[in-house]
Amino acid sequence: MTARHSDPTGLHRVLDETVVLPQAARRLDTRRELWPDEVRIRVEKLNLDAASYRQLEHKHGGDGDAIRAEVLDIVATRGKMQNPETGSGGMLVGTVDEAGPESPLGLQVGDRVATLVSLTLTPLVIEDGLRGWDGRGEQVPCDGYAVLFGRSIAAVIPDNLPADLSLSVMDVCGAPALTARVVEGYVSTGSTTGGPTVAVIGGGGKSGSLSLAAARRAGAGRTIGVVPHEREAAQLREAGLADEVVIADARNPIGLRDAVTAAGGPADVTVVCVDVPGCEGGAILATADRGTVIFFSMATSFSAAALGAEGLAADVTMLVGTGYTPGHAAYALELLRGDAGVRSLFEARLASAASTTGVAG
Amino acid sequence: MTARHSDPTGLHRVLDETVVLPQAARRLDTRRELWPDEVRIRVEKLNLDAASYRQLEHKHGGDGDAIRAEVLDIVATRGKMQNPETGSGGMLVGTVDEAGPESPLGLQVGDRVATLVSLTLTPLVIEDGLRGWDGRGEQVPCDGYAVLFGRSIAAVIPDNLPADLSLSVMDVCGAPALTARVVEGYVSTGSTTGGPTVAVIGGGGKSGSLSLAAARRAGAGRTIGVVPHEREAAQLREAGLADEVVIADARNPIGLRDAVTAAGGPADVTVVCVDVPGCEGGAILATADRGTVIFFSMATSFSAAALGAEGLAADVTMLVGTGYTPGHAAYALELLRGDAGVRSLFEARLASAASTTGVAG
Repeated sequence: MTARHSDPTGLHRVLDETVVLPQAARRLDTRRELWPDEVRIRVEKLNLDAASYRQLEHKHGGDGDAIRAEVLDIVATRGKMQNPETGSGGMLVGTVDEAGPESPLGLQVGDRVATLVSLTLTPLVIEDGLRGWDGRGEQVPCDGYAVLFGRSIAAVIPDNLPADLSLSVMDVCGAPALTARVVEGYVSTGSTTGGPTVAVIGGGGKSGSLSLAAARRAGAGRTIGVVPHEREAAQLREAGLADEVVIADARNPIGLRDAVTAAGGPADVTVVCVDVPGCEGGAILATADRGTVIFFSMATSFSAAALGAEGLAADVTMLVGTGYTPGHAAYALELLRGDAGVRSLFEARLASAASTTGVAG
Repeated sequence: MTARHSDPTGLHRVLDETVVLPQAARRLDTRRELWPDEVRIRVEKLNLDAASYRQLEHKHGGDGDAIRAEVLDIVATRGKMQNPETGSGGMLVGTVDEAGPESPLGLQVGDRVATLVSLTLTPLVIEDGLRGWDGRGEQVPCDGYAVLFGRSIAAVIPDNLPADLSLSVMDVCGAPALTARVVEGYVSTGSTTGGPTVAVIGGGGKSGSLSLAAARRAGAGRTIGVVPHEREAAQLREAGLADEVVIADARNPIGLRDAVTAAGGPADVTVVCVDVPGCEGGAILATADRGTVIFFSMATSFSAAALGAEGLAADVTMLVGTGYTPGHAAYALELLRGDAGVRSLFEARLASAASTTGVAG
């Protein structure tokens, strides 16, 4: 405990000279002692953001020792895991070690949890030199501790699901929750006959397949999954998550528009789940007048979206897809449990360890 | 006329080898002959985007001849005015020279119009070497021609208002229209007692003052204008556009949150109209649970907004503010005509020629 007053945003742990939130900070205070509203986690595993790991892998030519050394250096220097190039972090898994008396998170000592706020704002100390990690892959076994603030989010990992499967779902759980909310909005106003048409760009990925399942459950009249090639199309067809599965390059605006239109579009709701730049124009063109585009990809350019819609005289609502909606983790796990198609895709993905479309930061 | 089929997006004028929309293109086809759904404008004035002009001015140390030479070079090379550094363009004013038989824009030869789509996607040929421009300032007298596509937007300039005043309003007309739509949404669902509280960050600027006027007219219960210093606060108070005027640095998240809260916040709707980076966190913190943030600033970072809301466990809807909503130009001009406070701010701004908060691209 300390005399300095804590702030639920974690501001009290920012060491920068200007007033910035922990995510924007260069360096965080990683002291072990808790403020009254904080929680300390004994870390067991870090789950690096896909874009961040890809950058490190590329930079070091796949040299695991060099990748590990850089991760250690970043965390030691900044007091958090935030890739300086991509700006992204990831999430972590661990066990509650101590909960401050004023913590509003409802966690108990001994709970096994995943943090659903980004590592980019989580004070972190690595104590084992990451010696259990060969530097190859996004899953990083780790002994150390991390701190959660009053306004953080952590989900208790269910006992009845394999931990890796739960994590894999929680990693992208913001997408299905927000998709469901938007689709329900269209259903409740009755503005679309028989429910809205929902197109998910990147429908075969983690966030995409969950979003397709969420859209159907929320009352979509028709769901369209857009994937980049035949292999993913076959997998998605087999999973049965979309009424229509179409192949298109999301960076080709006209190709994307035409593919979605041919599959029963334009879409009332278009959900962008592919982590490649340049998908804004196609997503806007694939969307009906007064429709909604939800951007979940961290590769989205704000100005390309804003100027793109203006340039196309497109009257569409464009949402910044956030990783947080209340109850999002439980909802995503429920989709996994209740939908054999979702589960089969996630299990196949874990088996091939080829996660390519994570959106968590 | 030509045998190549036209596309309402202007795709037929893209000269790049990959399929991209005109805005993303490196180079456009500026041929004088129209496709059947196009309109040709005899250009009278270019209105460079504020961010673009500022970059050129800085790069050339204020040397007007060098600035003019670079604008000429950009337009000659790319077939459109798109600043390669800022990615932004501006708008233009001119007279309809020819309207293709299939143009859906409803324009007549001789109409004096402002284009409301960005110069970044408008084919443009400058024919006078910009000899009427000294390279100083965003208003560029110009003789030449430009082409509008089927899906372009142009507004006829009203006779009963000074042209500069109309243009100055049209430049930012997307903001008040979308603000009004969002505020009306809260009013119609009755989710807020007595109408939503609306905070406009940058409430003294062009888009900000119009957004304040729009929010009040759309049924806001309380309007809060946030400005950076006392001089702007005094102007905004005198204009009477906001119920509360507060001074805060929008880049300081805690300062912004506290200022809005003290003025009657948190806000149900927060409108970000300041063109400086780093305002995402403060805007999110100033917004109530289940509230909405509308980002109109081109300086908005998509990932800072998405990860910021997640990191703060903030359940807010975040909208990409677009320059287009049907009827936006007429609505903004109506606000100007109907509100003496708005008009006085715009006239004072024109008089001082110190436009600093434009959001048009």
